Amino acid sequence: MQPKEFLMIPGPTPVPDAVLEAIARDPMGHRTKEFSKVLVEVTASLKKLAECNGEVLMLTSSGTGAMEAAIANTISPGDKVLSCICGVFGERWAKIATAYGAEVEKLQVENGEPISVDALRDKLQADRNHTIKAVTITHNETSTGVINDLHQLALAVREHGALCIVDAVTSYGAAPIEFSHWGIDVMVAGSQKALMLPPGLAVIFMSDRAWEAQASCTSPRFYFDLAKYRTSLEQETTPFTPNVSFVVALKTSLDLMKQDGYRGIYVRHDRMKKALRAGVTGMGLKLFVPKEQYASPTITSIVPPTSISVDALRRTMKERYNIRVADGQDALKNKIFRIGHMGYVFERDILMTLSALEACLTELGYRCPSGIGVGSALAVLSTPASAAT
Amino acid sequence: MQPKEFLMIPGPTPVPDAVLEAIARDPMGHRTKEFSKVLVEVTASLKKLAECNGEVLMLTSSGTGAMEAAIANTISPGDKVLSCICGVFGERWAKIATAYGAEVEKLQVENGEPISVDALRDKLQADRNHTIKAVTITHNETSTGVINDLHQLALAVREHGALCIVDAVTSYGAAPIEFSHWGIDVMVAGSQKALMLPPGLAVIFMSDRAWEAQASCTSPRFYFDLAKYRTSLEQETTPFTPNVSFVVALKTSLDLMKQDGYRGIYVRHDRMKKALRAGVTGMGLKLFVPKEQYASPTITSIVPPTSISVDALRRTMKERYNIRVADGQDALKNKIFRIGHMGYVFERDILMTLSALEACLTELGYRCPSGIGVGSALAVLSTPASAAT
Repeated sequence: MQPKEFLMIPGPTPVPDAVLEAIARDPMGHRTKEFSKVLVEVTASLKKLAECNGEVLMLTSSGTGAMEAAIANTISPGDKVLSCICGVFGERWAKIATAYGAEVEKLQVENGEPISVDALRDKLQADRNHTIKAVTITHNETSTGVINDLHQLALAVREHGALCIVDAVTSYGAAPIEFSHWGIDVMVAGSQKALMLPPGLAVIFMSDRAWEAQASCTSPRFYFDLAKYRTSLEQETTPFTPNVSFVVALKTSLDLMKQDGYRGIYVRHDRMKKALRAGVTGMGLKLFVPKEQYASPTITSIVPPTSISVDALRRTMKERYNIRVADGQDALKNKIFRIGHMGYVFERDILMTLSALEACLTELGYRCPSGIGVGSALAVLSTPASAAT
Repeated sequence: MQPKEFLMIPGPTPVPDAVLEAIARDPMGHRTKEFSKVLVEVTASLKKLAECNGEVLMLTSSGTGAMEAAIANTISPGDKVLSCICGVFGERWAKIATAYGAEVEKLQVENGEPISVDALRDKLQADRNHTIKAVTITHNETSTGVINDLHQLALAVREHGALCIVDAVTSYGAAPIEFSHWGIDVMVAGSQKALMLPPGLAVIFMSDRAWEAQASCTSPRFYFDLAKYRTSLEQETTPFTPNVSFVVALKTSLDLMKQDGYRGIYVRHDRMKKALRAGVTGMGLKLFVPKEQYASPTITSIVPPTSISVDALRRTMKERYNIRVADGQDALKNKIFRIGHMGYVFERDILMTLSALEACLTELGYRCPSGIGVGSALAVLSTPASAAT
């Protein structure tokens, strides 16, 4: 017998029992008043959580499906798209836009670095003829553990006038986002992150400007045709059979989040990040994102000691403690390991992970003062939560 | 207190407890050996159930998403597509193909009629220059309750050489399909029908000929790019985060189906259809699909007595017995009602529905000999199941 597997990866993430119970009910019919009521309530909560005055639609798909919907509804073949890239998911926007025939320009930084607001502003100011139709931004880059300054980046895009298309898959619900106030036009999120559901449901936000672009966009689409979802939502329904079980469960999850208060949830994620970073550096390990300002509140990337491979460390964490942590992706594979702390994860879980990490590093031959990881984390957490931000 | 709601609609359908319990588990990581094992097992079972020597891929989407994937991967702008249409879902193929720039020709029959094999053969023989790239067929037309002779239709398509693209959403797992032997090239199915899951997962089958078409197809796609899924599956994984909970639950569901035997499941659906039709006609109601040969084994469409509206009947069924039956769709709204009997539904449920139907019709002023519906159904069911087909 082993303790229950604990996912400290960037999705899927742990799911609260109340949400699992909601999912475990026999599905309701999607063309019923009961489902319409849930749909309307969930929609209102999703908008509130993003401070969005526009519209939000739910898609039965992974987050990448919603990314494709964002492009297929706003970008026509030949349109120019500027993709801000600081990792795998920034690159994904460029790939999707390219697949849809866009002319993609890249504003790329090294892995572990954030997108520079100044560099973006310079790029956009150089575009005097306003040929750039849209800018894609990854709010929280899951592959590196960087959170970008979305507010300032979005302001720079709005100054220029291009559409601001944002991947908030691993930030929405864990870090503050003011969709309308910051001037975001399209934003996508996924169920299996801070929304505390299993993967399978995606969310897309649209501004008035985004709908204008949608109306004249010539890219082919049917299942991801957002106008269909909008028309159906006006009638409190969906164009195609949705994942009713997940929509119903999302109501439970959003209700749990409301009870804590969104601000409280952001503070919790910020504290987990700071405690984990303090613990890891206390043990003498190197953080992949050195500047705390750009360190993600939901995923922390760590460079292992040179003597220990990422594989060995992950395997030991799994075998000895049944805790899963993630490898790096693509170019960062075997170079960093990533600890996810998004959604239904708490300070307790950070302390558990740090303790297990110390034990595993020790087992693999690494030496650090006993208990220093947890000690360093506890020093951060001794500050009351109300004073943490 | 009311009895538990019972869905006799064409999806979502009732879900077995064992499947709900599988869904209710904390999701596993999708980049793990454990998930790879499930993925490989489910894939093998899905292929066996369709008698498919080609490939099957799972998509996190509704069935319509898989329909879009079918088109986006095989049809390029300007390609000619012949759509066989006997209802709303046949029309959906034409709409999707049109959205992707295809030149769509329609072979359309009246609602309630099946597609004529001879008419299809004539159309295809008239296409001497083989300009028709693909033919779309709806195996089981959910909007009318017709099941088409897919075997003969697919043979006619293969004689011509066009790709045979099939919607088997409400037939797969309830009626026999021999994907490879019948010469089908692309086929889609959904989780919330005979596969006994909630909605949210779709399945797509591909023949070698379909992959050839895929390789040269120029339509834009990313999330639905089937080549990505194929490459990932070779490595026992998925290109994007799938609905892991549903994939795991699908294994439970497919295992349950194996225990019954696929043949046994087809016989059960056939018996339910025959019993329901006998009961309904026994009560003096009119079947929308008169010929039993073309009557769907998963959905039965019924014309209510002229004195009773579909709305009133559905409302009474819901309020008095908490049984949901479906209205007609589009042109058939308020003209027919539809009783779904797919997946986790049994003879017992047909008898229950017929009893409730008689009670509700009587309450609404209709007169028929007491118990005649159930009596007529029981006469059919008195034949042993082994002799039923």
